[in-house]
Amino acid sequence: MTKGKISLVLRLLAVGSTAAAIAIMVTSHETAKVLNLSFNAKYSNTSAFVYFVVAEAIAGGYSLVSLLLSCMMPARRLVMTMDVVIAMLLSSSISAAVAIGQVGKKGNSHAGWLPICGQVPKFCDQVTGALIAGFVAAAVYLILLLCSLHSLLALKP
Amino acid sequence: MTKGKISLVLRLLAVGSTAAAIAIMVTSHETAKVLNLSFNAKYSNTSAFVYFVVAEAIAGGYSLVSLLLSCMMPARRLVMTMDVVIAMLLSSSISAAVAIGQVGKKGNSHAGWLPICGQVPKFCDQVTGALIAGFVAAAVYLILLLCSLHSLLALKP
Repeated sequence: MTKGKISLVLRLLAVGSTAAAIAIMVTSHETAKVLNLSFNAKYSNTSAFVYFVVAEAIAGGYSLVSLLLSCMMPARRLVMTMDVVIAMLLSSSISAAVAIGQVGKKGNSHAGWLPICGQVPKFCDQVTGALIAGFVAAAVYLILLLCSLHSLLALKP
Repeated sequence: MTKGKISLVLRLLAVGSTAAAIAIMVTSHETAKVLNLSFNAKYSNTSAFVYFVVAEAIAGGYSLVSLLLSCMMPARRLVMTMDVVIAMLLSSSISAAVAIGQVGKKGNSHAGWLPICGQVPKFCDQVTGALIAGFVAAAVYLILLLCSLHSLLALKP
């Protein structure tokens, strides 16, 4: 398989995984009753999850555009620069969401933050699924960057 | 200023900012009394802050080593590959810490997590300082990567 085809497959994989991450995160909501109080868990209540969805959307949109751009040689500098930015954006958004997800699952007794996954297990499972899809997208961009660097540096003394 | 010198200055800046981030985060602790209960806030109580310190330590250590490695031409592929990994690690660790810091500052009423910065303002200020230093380190790595890519791609057709 040529380098161009590998890049094409990786970018398609990035489009798929970011789309999956957005779809799973956006559709996650669950209502629970705790002590007669109705409690509605949804992604938009947590700014880290909103940031995650926005970052995945930007990465997914860029991945689609880059499928076209990467075929054009003069755009290579732009594509590699944007690849670096998107890889950092993805790793940033997934980490913010994981950090909050971890408090949701385990809580933080020192700060008095109780875990909520016991009350809304379906919501938590769906968020976990979205995080896995987001992690795949970030990994794809890391591989994409390392492949680009490898082929660039292999040709130079 | 030559590209080599710019890279040297940026790597020195990365060493300084990661060292500052670690020092400020590790020395942050404050004890408060809430309803006669003693409440001790320190970075090691939150896994996102521990991850932040570990990531900054790895990035700082690597920045020091890369100061030597970047002078050796045969090591350039290794240095650029590691630069990508460290840039993603830094952006990941800062985002996880910011996500938790934001809950500490504003709380999350939907999840029932109360803000704690009212009780431990000095701790919060110090964490904010560490996050700013960490943000500088991540920005330095982004600039470093873009400079490397620019000089690599400028020489190629």
